[in-house]
Amino acid sequence: MVKTPELRSVPELIAHKRDGGALSDAELRSLVNRYATGELPDYQMAALAMAIYFRGMTPAETTAYTLAMRDSGRVMDLSKIPGKKIDKHSTGGVGDKISLSLAPIVAACGVPVPMMAGRGLGHTGGTLDKLEAIPGFHVDLTPKQFAQQLATLGCAIIGQTADLAPADKRLYALRDVTATIESIPLITGSILSKKLAEGLDGLVMDVKVGRGAFMKNVDDARVLAKSLVRVGRQAGKDVRALLTRMDDPLGLMIGNALEVRESFLTLRGEGPADLLECTLALGSEMLQMGGVAKSRAEAHRRLLRAMRDGSAASLMERMIAAQGGDKRVVAEPDRLPAAKVRIPITAPKGGTVQQIDALELGLTGVALGAGRTQTDDVVDPRVGIELAAVVGDRVAAGAPLAYLHVNERRGHGRHVARVRDAFTLGARAVSLPPLVIERITR
Amino acid sequence: MVKTPELRSVPELIAHKRDGGALSDAELRSLVNRYATGELPDYQMAALAMAIYFRGMTPAETTAYTLAMRDSGRVMDLSKIPGKKIDKHSTGGVGDKISLSLAPIVAACGVPVPMMAGRGLGHTGGTLDKLEAIPGFHVDLTPKQFAQQLATLGCAIIGQTADLAPADKRLYALRDVTATIESIPLITGSILSKKLAEGLDGLVMDVKVGRGAFMKNVDDARVLAKSLVRVGRQAGKDVRALLTRMDDPLGLMIGNALEVRESFLTLRGEGPADLLECTLALGSEMLQMGGVAKSRAEAHRRLLRAMRDGSAASLMERMIAAQGGDKRVVAEPDRLPAAKVRIPITAPKGGTVQQIDALELGLTGVALGAGRTQTDDVVDPRVGIELAAVVGDRVAAGAPLAYLHVNERRGHGRHVARVRDAFTLGARAVSLPPLVIERITR
Repeated sequence: MVKTPELRSVPELIAHKRDGGALSDAELRSLVNRYATGELPDYQMAALAMAIYFRGMTPAETTAYTLAMRDSGRVMDLSKIPGKKIDKHSTGGVGDKISLSLAPIVAACGVPVPMMAGRGLGHTGGTLDKLEAIPGFHVDLTPKQFAQQLATLGCAIIGQTADLAPADKRLYALRDVTATIESIPLITGSILSKKLAEGLDGLVMDVKVGRGAFMKNVDDARVLAKSLVRVGRQAGKDVRALLTRMDDPLGLMIGNALEVRESFLTLRGEGPADLLECTLALGSEMLQMGGVAKSRAEAHRRLLRAMRDGSAASLMERMIAAQGGDKRVVAEPDRLPAAKVRIPITAPKGGTVQQIDALELGLTGVALGAGRTQTDDVVDPRVGIELAAVVGDRVAAGAPLAYLHVNERRGHGRHVARVRDAFTLGARAVSLPPLVIERITR
Repeated sequence: MVKTPELRSVPELIAHKRDGGALSDAELRSLVNRYATGELPDYQMAALAMAIYFRGMTPAETTAYTLAMRDSGRVMDLSKIPGKKIDKHSTGGVGDKISLSLAPIVAACGVPVPMMAGRGLGHTGGTLDKLEAIPGFHVDLTPKQFAQQLATLGCAIIGQTADLAPADKRLYALRDVTATIESIPLITGSILSKKLAEGLDGLVMDVKVGRGAFMKNVDDARVLAKSLVRVGRQAGKDVRALLTRMDDPLGLMIGNALEVRESFLTLRGEGPADLLECTLALGSEMLQMGGVAKSRAEAHRRLLRAMRDGSAASLMERMIAAQGGDKRVVAEPDRLPAAKVRIPITAPKGGTVQQIDALELGLTGVALGAGRTQTDDVVDPRVGIELAAVVGDRVAAGAPLAYLHVNERRGHGRHVARVRDAFTLGARAVSLPPLVIERITR
């Protein structure tokens, strides 16, 4: 007995996927819509998500699923704002504060950046948590306020509004507690449904690869990047992806206020070289997608100029002020909240830093209170880890490798040991390969 | 970072199983206990069940899981009742009314039969639904009443009490709607947790194989049978299994009152040969497990004597009376509820019946109202299908193949066609192999 799609029950649809079958557009749309309204219970979605984890989705299924997720709520229309609206999204890394400075830098070059960002969960931080370390800054603009700020300033960084891809909001929370995060089609749908709903014209994806990233190897990351690019293109958007290294932390700072501080350096073209390298690579894509630069070289020149002439910093100040924050922090970062104590962590022996385990540092940051293990955890903006040495540096025995930024002097023995153990010291000289591993445009 | 079992969160446990790992006794017991109390939500259990569907369980895991399910509620103690208490359980087939007559026949031979039975779901019927076709009969005895009836009469057939393996009760309902039924370790745990909790000493499993059964082929059925026998033995019980054919329906009747009627024939050693064959095979195991027969031949003699001397029928009457039913139905089956109309379904051509698709007949029975597609469906005891020809019979064109027992003359075109199509007619002479395919004792 062959049933028509309309007649198949939810358990039959789950069984079909479980057995390796593909679901139709109509079936996926029905499942997503019924999940968004609460008609489809979490337990059936959890079983389906696990079946998808094992069986995957065809490209057609992934696209249909993503578009259904996008259409589960409001789809913003930013077409009245002139210019191509280009966003950037990272799959998450340790010390990844690129978005904070990238948005105003790119906007200062004339490309509007409508950025909806997320909160930290697990070992990676979230852009919203970082921004909220700025006194007064708030991320909950209405869609109208968001569009207005984008029109007047050229950039805004806000949280996902409740009416944007609500099916994803519910499903992401479910996947987080049912071990169904690590699925290429589900990740694709989760990232792109929100991005497609925010009314952008183009998106550059920073797909992190390595020890401190969600994707541990280049092959997996490439599969995800291609999935994102393909689905984005099928939705009519210009989507590109860079695979970038995430074995060691990005920059020197891990922790919310610390990362804001560091991003203010990048905003002026200063600070750690890897942050600048990553910012230029992603910003270059955005400027070319936005049509304000014809080549990578031209884009780099424009980006560096916006950093060095103060226009990016000025735009950051205006964005902070527009979103209720104390804009003086940009020029006077000591106004940011700071931890009470700075505990040095010293090298147990002399040598060259061979590698730094970003995952371990990210997890230590969470343990210090800088991140979350549950969505309702409260984040302490002050605490974190400051690196005093990076890969390739030579350190003497007893010299600092890093500092813990904490609020009590005692009780950090385990954190100190964990950070120290995250450093591998050796005799060999080390030079790191470029940050960008691969560029994916189709 | 290696975590001790106690520290692993539920998502970590799900991920561990998803990635092919084994869960410890303590982990499984914790999951089951927390599920039974409601602390572990359905959505996490659904994801775990789907991961188990794909990854399976080791024998040690299956045993630990089953015992944890058993211990999620009351474990009955029938040790004060003399003799070995032996139950029988079938994985479910179309027309499988064996339990109804088997319990009083075996009990009449001196082996106490504490039978907790289930309701029909999907294309197979349930013993409780069948018994409830008897006017007044109720299946909701308290554990104390159950033990008392077992002590005085030697048999009782009741529904699963709420406090018996409550984790299974909740999980079975969940699996039913999340496409996670078809998993050997989960089936093993579901069947045996209840059986082990009912205080039996031994169990014979009738594992049905074929078109009309849950297990479609002998290999799968053997895996399930071995899993049941192994886990049962590890729990200290004498568990054996017979694999029996379920391609064609058992007996001639499908539908609750119709099947009760037919089981009263078997009770006296009359009626269809396949029912008698199956009853003798299972009863023989039970008598030997119960210690009242030393060989299959001796067991067969005793079983046939209890049928023919009326002691089994008498015991059936007493059991019906004890459970509130009208015991006159045994001698006067016309007192059972009956459908208003009997619609003949005729052979479209002459020939020999090559096969009868039990699954199609089971599903047609459900469509007529004899079974359930959802747990809260109400069953009509009167309706069903009566076979007029079985495999191997020669029929002339226009001769009846079967009859629908329904309450309205009109509107059954689709059911008639479906039953007719379930019969394959051909020229070849057919003789069926024995019903018992294999006996599994370890």
